[in-house]
Amino acid sequence: MAFRYPNGQLFSSDSTPKESAKLTKRTNFANRGMRFEEAINQSNDYYLTHDIAVIHKKPTPLQIVKVDYPRRSAAVIKEAYFRQPSTTDYNGVYKGYYLDFEAKETKNKTSFPFKNFHQHQIDHMKNCLKQGGICFILLWFSSIERCFFLSSEVLIALWEQQASGKKSMTLSQVETEGIEIFPKIAPRIPYLDAVDEFICKKE
Amino acid sequence: MAFRYPNGQLFSSDSTPKESAKLTKRTNFANRGMRFEEAINQSNDYYLTHDIAVIHKKPTPLQIVKVDYPRRSAAVIKEAYFRQPSTTDYNGVYKGYYLDFEAKETKNKTSFPFKNFHQHQIDHMKNCLKQGGICFILLWFSSIERCFFLSSEVLIALWEQQASGKKSMTLSQVETEGIEIFPKIAPRIPYLDAVDEFICKKE
Repeated sequence: MAFRYPNGQLFSSDSTPKESAKLTKRTNFANRGMRFEEAINQSNDYYLTHDIAVIHKKPTPLQIVKVDYPRRSAAVIKEAYFRQPSTTDYNGVYKGYYLDFEAKETKNKTSFPFKNFHQHQIDHMKNCLKQGGICFILLWFSSIERCFFLSSEVLIALWEQQASGKKSMTLSQVETEGIEIFPKIAPRIPYLDAVDEFICKKE
Repeated sequence: MAFRYPNGQLFSSDSTPKESAKLTKRTNFANRGMRFEEAINQSNDYYLTHDIAVIHKKPTPLQIVKVDYPRRSAAVIKEAYFRQPSTTDYNGVYKGYYLDFEAKETKNKTSFPFKNFHQHQIDHMKNCLKQGGICFILLWFSSIERCFFLSSEVLIALWEQQASGKKSMTLSQVETEGIEIFPKIAPRIPYLDAVDEFICKKE
């Protein structure tokens, strides 16, 4: 069994070997059999254990309806539903800065569709920017294996072009306006290098 | 049915009127029939809608084991378990500062037991402090209806007295080392006033 959470995260369990092979292929990250999100989570672990930053992925919000509660130590949730998150997936603190971001991937080779983002995420980023947070997205073009940092200021400006009918941002826009991140062994996605560059340009 | 999540949050559903009455009494906040956590969430809503700060409670982390997936729009989680969080419950951004905190209540009148806190929360606070975050706890003494801000620096110092056998911090310590917060209508718990005072003293 496998499906995607509303946030795009893949959930799988008791899948057959054939299903697993398909999933691995579909969600492969940089030929290391790793999904983009897992690579970011590993990077966050690296940053945490090396005292570089404290960034966590927020749990998926669920509406719990029914719980079996046979023993205090073993509550079993028997009925629950996925809820729409009201924020982005990742936030935390780095060198005194509040960081807030969303990570997304596409199989497209030349553009990144806006449908990967939701209005509530854009609104949340706007709110965080007003408070002086550093907000951005991490984009993974899986077919061409390229990763980019794009500030929320730029994302919001591009996003608002939807009013004039645009459905996506082009790779060329992302190359020009973003900062490319080159995956490595540890941290897998060294996105704080891009954050440093962004802060440096900004100040 | 009612129980407490591992994080102390109360969950209840389909409770009988009698049960509800008991619960309301037990978890009453300042005679307004409101739980402390709900009062904080309302305060966060107030701060958000008034462009004062962006603070959210993190969802309870769950381990999802089984999902019925009849239609894309209606995935039903059929088996899941509570997981130990690795952070505190609340974080966000305020005037460029990263804020991170935990909210706890006690029925005790003269002391706040350390068992309300977990080692992972202390460790998380230490990590955030290293990165220049503003970390604290909000304490609610429900029997005497008094609310305090206590910085994580102080909490950690007191917490480490457990090595010498201390089981709790005294109200008198909290009065001396913390900042009292006086609940009002909106925001219900004006804890950012205490944060301002704390930042002001610190800088």
